[in-house]
Amino acid sequence: MYTASHHSCTDGKNVLAEGVLAVLRDLEHRSADELLRMSDDYGFRADLAAACHALTSRAYDDGDRAALEEVHGALALIYDREFSARPVQESDHEREPILRDVAAVLERAVLGHELRRIPESSVTGHPESGPEYVRWLKAVISDHPAGWHPLYHRHLAEHGSTDDLRLLLAQETSLDPRFDDILALLQIGRHGAEKMEIAANYWDEMGNGEPAGVHTTLFSQALEAIGADSAYIRREFLLEAGISGNISACLALSRRHYHKAVGYFGVTEYLAPRRFRCVVDAWRRHDLDEVGIVYHDLHIGVDAGHAAGWFKNVIGPLVSADPAAGRDIALGAMIRLNTSRDYLDTLLERMRAGAPVPTGV
Amino acid sequence: MYTASHHSCTDGKNVLAEGVLAVLRDLEHRSADELLRMSDDYGFRADLAAACHALTSRAYDDGDRAALEEVHGALALIYDREFSARPVQESDHEREPILRDVAAVLERAVLGHELRRIPESSVTGHPESGPEYVRWLKAVISDHPAGWHPLYHRHLAEHGSTDDLRLLLAQETSLDPRFDDILALLQIGRHGAEKMEIAANYWDEMGNGEPAGVHTTLFSQALEAIGADSAYIRREFLLEAGISGNISACLALSRRHYHKAVGYFGVTEYLAPRRFRCVVDAWRRHDLDEVGIVYHDLHIGVDAGHAAGWFKNVIGPLVSADPAAGRDIALGAMIRLNTSRDYLDTLLERMRAGAPVPTGV
Repeated sequence: MYTASHHSCTDGKNVLAEGVLAVLRDLEHRSADELLRMSDDYGFRADLAAACHALTSRAYDDGDRAALEEVHGALALIYDREFSARPVQESDHEREPILRDVAAVLERAVLGHELRRIPESSVTGHPESGPEYVRWLKAVISDHPAGWHPLYHRHLAEHGSTDDLRLLLAQETSLDPRFDDILALLQIGRHGAEKMEIAANYWDEMGNGEPAGVHTTLFSQALEAIGADSAYIRREFLLEAGISGNISACLALSRRHYHKAVGYFGVTEYLAPRRFRCVVDAWRRHDLDEVGIVYHDLHIGVDAGHAAGWFKNVIGPLVSADPAAGRDIALGAMIRLNTSRDYLDTLLERMRAGAPVPTGV
Repeated sequence: MYTASHHSCTDGKNVLAEGVLAVLRDLEHRSADELLRMSDDYGFRADLAAACHALTSRAYDDGDRAALEEVHGALALIYDREFSARPVQESDHEREPILRDVAAVLERAVLGHELRRIPESSVTGHPESGPEYVRWLKAVISDHPAGWHPLYHRHLAEHGSTDDLRLLLAQETSLDPRFDDILALLQIGRHGAEKMEIAANYWDEMGNGEPAGVHTTLFSQALEAIGADSAYIRREFLLEAGISGNISACLALSRRHYHKAVGYFGVTEYLAPRRFRCVVDAWRRHDLDEVGIVYHDLHIGVDAGHAAGWFKNVIGPLVSADPAAGRDIALGAMIRLNTSRDYLDTLLERMRAGAPVPTGV
């Protein structure tokens, strides 16, 4: 037993020299017994945690872009396991303890970075009654640079090309293909009208029981219609879109992040209609296949209702019941707004570089 | 930093002398900073894992009942965190890495014990086409001693008292109050008709959007009508019911247990109608408040439909797509049948001791 453990330890440590992401990729090929030994090897676990701390320090203290990519590559791999079906042949392959350790260190750094960007004054001093808080939060969202971002409301609305639409939809794969599962997770342990609001939103995502109306199916049709296949998405996917996707997953997966998640996804629902309006207009201007725009067209109306319900039945009552919840909800909203802005800024730059805006426009 | 870590280590180790459950209870009162130091203290983590191994060895190798109770008390505490809302004041309290380590060792022992009770011949040699597999599995369920258990089909049907009904409903709190969330978890990462089947089952649990029809609400009404309050439930709750509840949570929480979960909850759905028929008959024989039996009465019909859909749209297609899935599904079904039998055997003994069967019957 000791020999086996020692052997596994050496194995894990050898891979560790290649980095945190290399360790996670190596875990994919380990047998159930090897994984068990590695989980039980707390020398290896401590070394892996130290490597995670060193990685996040390079990413966030030193501003090392490659390290930042490794942080988010590692988190994307971990979340992909949480949100996807596992083959029956791997039912005894237990990677959770090691992955949870890694995720804990990386998530703390990612969220810590986002929280440091938010001025305390922007999340305190808010109204303490639910309805007034909701009005306040809506103003915070619309006043933020991400509230009416030029990518949607100028570039796409006025002269977005089909290449731009393809590039945008490729980035949206960071959230939309798992939004139903995110809602399913958010409602766990909640009660009453609050739970029902999220449940009904989930059921809408599932086409209200109509297979042809399932939103992930409609979103796939949009990708297909615009020619964004998996090779294209892999090639063109921006780090900033990956960061948004990772934070979405992080906040949904743990019960303790619920209040931040409620603010975060409240922003998503609230901004979707105005943003999707610009996507639909650009799509139709290019006379693209209507089948590909059903998803976005549908969400203009549906998400207006979802946002209204989210504010009325989730956010308002949470704040009325405990005003202390207002700060965490606002933090979540600000995290979404800031990361959305980063991502749209980068994407807009990329669109402008890829297809120069006609002079004189 | 080292001093702090060393200090926390000593703290954790002091508590560890009192057992695994004491450590988990102690975590409830730790500050966010203390929890962080304990998570990063791999000496403490290794000692805690060793304590978990020692505990499961006493429970399962030595047959120590107190140790078995501690194993399941610890798991119940961990799962309760996963299935319940966390206060906003604890959003920075990260206990997941430590709890996942503990759960991993305990779950392996609990599932290992159940798997050793299942003869390999009972889960292999099954048909390889979906529809034939379903027929085979239904026969396995009905032929098992839990398929027509005397608690329901003799004791309760013929002379179950209101005390018996109260005792039974108290045990059912191990699963029913979180069945909606279990379905929400099961459907994560699935697709097509399989995902829709579980989604529709979830939406049924949510009263199809009608607050008064939410099944957890109806179940609470049943508890209230029969006088099973939380103090009564705490006092009368059987270890065997806790084991069932823990295995239900374990199989639902991890993607890699999906196939076992599908077999496990397939049994639950398939047996509910015939079992609930007996509960409803006993309830009405005692002329109890009808409001309390809506839940069980409803499920006689609803779960017949759910079971049919579960077999047709989930189990059948999984086996047709990959016959290797059949073994894991059957293992899950057998785990449910065996633990259900244990629990019903113990409960029936308790009912008979509590209210002796009239002689001559």
